[in-house]
Amino acid sequence: MEEVKLLGFWPSPFSHRVIWSLKLKGIKYEYIEEDVSNKSQLLLQSNPVHKKVPVLFHNGNSIAESTVILEFIEETWPENPLLPRDAYQRALARFWIKFGEDEGLIIHKFFVAIGGEREKAAKEILEVLKILEQQGLKENKFFGGNTIGLVDISYGWLAHWFLVTEEIVGVKVIEPSKLPLLHAWVKNFKDIPVIKDNLPDYEKLVVHMKSYYYKLLFEVVDL
Amino acid sequence: MEEVKLLGFWPSPFSHRVIWSLKLKGIKYEYIEEDVSNKSQLLLQSNPVHKKVPVLFHNGNSIAESTVILEFIEETWPENPLLPRDAYQRALARFWIKFGEDEGLIIHKFFVAIGGEREKAAKEILEVLKILEQQGLKENKFFGGNTIGLVDISYGWLAHWFLVTEEIVGVKVIEPSKLPLLHAWVKNFKDIPVIKDNLPDYEKLVVHMKSYYYKLLFEVVDL
Repeated sequence: MEEVKLLGFWPSPFSHRVIWSLKLKGIKYEYIEEDVSNKSQLLLQSNPVHKKVPVLFHNGNSIAESTVILEFIEETWPENPLLPRDAYQRALARFWIKFGEDEGLIIHKFFVAIGGEREKAAKEILEVLKILEQQGLKENKFFGGNTIGLVDISYGWLAHWFLVTEEIVGVKVIEPSKLPLLHAWVKNFKDIPVIKDNLPDYEKLVVHMKSYYYKLLFEVVDL
Repeated sequence: MEEVKLLGFWPSPFSHRVIWSLKLKGIKYEYIEEDVSNKSQLLLQSNPVHKKVPVLFHNGNSIAESTVILEFIEETWPENPLLPRDAYQRALARFWIKFGEDEGLIIHKFFVAIGGEREKAAKEILEVLKILEQQGLKENKFFGGNTIGLVDISYGWLAHWFLVTEEIVGVKVIEPSKLPLLHAWVKNFKDIPVIKDNLPDYEKLVVHMKSYYYKLLFEVVDL
């Protein structure tokens, strides 16, 4: 019998990448919630390098780093493919996943920016998201076409967590007037049943991210 | 007839990742040297997002980002595999490639550090390289075993460019007393004929990186 377990944390967009991929492929798995304030032996032993969720367990092996897990899932269960079959199209998908991993770091800047810095950070994010919209998404329903794939999954944080960030920070970036195609994508993405049914509760996420936000702000003030 | 072209820059470790992979697989290609001080239309059109080398051209398609190109090469020409066949072993390889991409950023800090900051940065790098050595490389000749693969190729900068950095900065990190296994790996890696025959000239690289170094230092002082 195949063993599939996922060690995750409920507000983590990275854990949700793995949840969505497994569910979209119809893979049964056991979910284990990690206590990130008191890290488990399971986490420390299975991801000694980063000590972070998500970690996927498959038949005794453990795999860390969400983008690495996504590729593993795709290779291990090729049914309901989440990457295109064509090597060039796959390369494009990986290019945009990497773009999100590299540029996503600016979100943190937006989150902790105060005063005038906030507008500046929002402008920077808008520029990055415009590139993503115009060169990555284009007029498509999903990244790469008409069906959901790993690029969409990797940008899941944008469709849900980023809206919470906008609410907390008090600046709206993904608006129809600024990013019409990306705004439509957020709806398309969240309309997929597996996504809709597997998102952390919005209000609960606001409370969680607010406490994180004030902690970060406090650290900034403390410097 | 298959078209394979590479747009690169002679001192770029990222361009060399692609060169090594193509040569290890015996793929014939045309090399085009980019003038990075006056970027070509070919570069601007083929990598409009980052405007950086390397860019691989294959039958009219262009692919950017060296780690994405490496995966494309592996999928397009599976002969002489550079990733393990087993999905879990592939995941491990991708984990260590990602580790280098993420943690490699600290090299820049080491490069521009002056005075006491330099020793501090060298200490940080040593900690990162110890993790790489003890958990990634272990007692193996190459990452993942007895033959060269994509992990080794992705760490090529460590085997050649980093030694130049050490010389310029004046601090040695990869020493037998500090990192015996990684020190041995540098030799194993550079002993592979395809690698040895396709490295930028050391003295030329010192001159190039020194001019870059002084430019960076000047910018730091200028702040």
